[in-house]
Amino acid sequence: MNISERNNEYKLLIEAELYNAIASCEAPDPLMSAMKYSISAGGKRLRPCLALGVCDMLGGEREMALALGCGIEMIHTYSLIHDDLPCMDDDDMRRGRPSNHKVFGEGQAVLAGDGLLTFAFELMLKKGLEFNSLAYFKAVHEIAKRAGVSGMVAGQSRDLEAENGSLVDENELRYIHVHKTADMLAAAVLAGAYSADADEASINALEKYSEKMGLLFQITDDILDYEGDQALVGKTLGKDEENSKLTYITLYGIEKARQIAAQTAEDAERIVLDAFGTSAEYLIKTVQEMVSRKY
Amino acid sequence: MNISERNNEYKLLIEAELYNAIASCEAPDPLMSAMKYSISAGGKRLRPCLALGVCDMLGGEREMALALGCGIEMIHTYSLIHDDLPCMDDDDMRRGRPSNHKVFGEGQAVLAGDGLLTFAFELMLKKGLEFNSLAYFKAVHEIAKRAGVSGMVAGQSRDLEAENGSLVDENELRYIHVHKTADMLAAAVLAGAYSADADEASINALEKYSEKMGLLFQITDDILDYEGDQALVGKTLGKDEENSKLTYITLYGIEKARQIAAQTAEDAERIVLDAFGTSAEYLIKTVQEMVSRKY
Repeated sequence: MNISERNNEYKLLIEAELYNAIASCEAPDPLMSAMKYSISAGGKRLRPCLALGVCDMLGGEREMALALGCGIEMIHTYSLIHDDLPCMDDDDMRRGRPSNHKVFGEGQAVLAGDGLLTFAFELMLKKGLEFNSLAYFKAVHEIAKRAGVSGMVAGQSRDLEAENGSLVDENELRYIHVHKTADMLAAAVLAGAYSADADEASINALEKYSEKMGLLFQITDDILDYEGDQALVGKTLGKDEENSKLTYITLYGIEKARQIAAQTAEDAERIVLDAFGTSAEYLIKTVQEMVSRKY
Repeated sequence: MNISERNNEYKLLIEAELYNAIASCEAPDPLMSAMKYSISAGGKRLRPCLALGVCDMLGGEREMALALGCGIEMIHTYSLIHDDLPCMDDDDMRRGRPSNHKVFGEGQAVLAGDGLLTFAFELMLKKGLEFNSLAYFKAVHEIAKRAGVSGMVAGQSRDLEAENGSLVDENELRYIHVHKTADMLAAAVLAGAYSADADEASINALEKYSEKMGLLFQITDDILDYEGDQALVGKTLGKDEENSKLTYITLYGIEKARQIAAQTAEDAERIVLDAFGTSAEYLIKTVQEMVSRKY
């Protein structure tokens, strides 16, 4: 299997579904423009791709995985808009363009985020009334849980506390990333599983895979940030010169962090290979892509 | 029927359900405290009371109306938290206490709102998996729609534009209030109807009732604001001296606004009396309470 081709196929399906969703949306301007601006900003569409990949692996209903995956993509997008706000991470740029609030103002950016989050549930539920499948509604519940106050929002809240100077140790760092990153990857992977009405053992294996993927995502993110800083500064910063934010690099140093990334990738591959054999090829290649990612 | 007693009975059920929901919530601090702070701030619980009132009128499943009503109350509460933010209405006080962001900071207030919105769906969906009723899931979809980008969030976005100085005419004022206020009242009333698996005719009548209630809510709000201002200033302000915000008072003057309120109340009563006869007593008394409200 050529993973690029597979991802391109998935991306076409996902972009079309997102486009149709937005076309059916009756939001007035500027809300509509603000939502469109961020949802059409592109990106790898990693989460809905994972939903489709798991669904295909298990022979599930693609329509379901697609609807759930696009809901997850909207939720992911809302979280980026709110994350970029001045009162949160205060980022002026996102994916090479001015962030949402720089274009539409803070108030409309808050509402664009609220709108995308609510629209995700509106769409997923609308499809659910057509499918009328309990497994599908289980997936929508799982997504709400992983996106919410014991999932992604919990991770963001703790992360914000950490940035505002409350002490962070390794356990806390792990808590933040499990919830801020891994939970939404798990939501996507499990959405694919529920679309195939998967059994308990498959769901357990996929949950473990998601946890490893979340950790891997974060470590490779920290490594990329570190390498970017190195390239900019042109010299190796001593630990004392770095800012105080705790990352896997400040915690372990760059060499150890690379080792942990490699080990985590191996663990993730092993989990799905043991559970699903060679049919897990897409999930395994997605791990390898993440290890070698350049952005 | 004594409406105060009925409302007290409903409020006890609602507060218990909300309390149980929060007790089951695994949010970490400060997210948890910020959510609790606003959800426990009290208020009339008008929306879940309406859900229960309609459900009882139609002989529906109280458990369903209660779950949906509490979801709606959480969504209403999140909207108040975000509305009070400096980048929105910039209100320091809410229900006689400092607003959420004054206590927890803007970032955590944004997250408390996001958390309550997501938790509402998490809880409503969790109950849905127990009830396993299509009518119930229809109600959850209706709530998402009314709360979302063609409903409440749309109204908020247009309202924010209006406050930032874009021209507002009567149609626009009506658009804002239909979506910002009436839609969530409709969500509550229809949640009660779906809990009783109501027929199309009942649902149509209840939608019209909600529209009138939304308008009534807004006009009485404007009248109360006007009377409050009069009491403060101790004299009648000329129209030129008032600020430029368009309200039903600036649009029609106080006498005409009072007439519209009375007529709207009569319309609302007539709609449910025609559709449901004397069993609509609770809905009728809720109209009368709103006309004579002092806050």
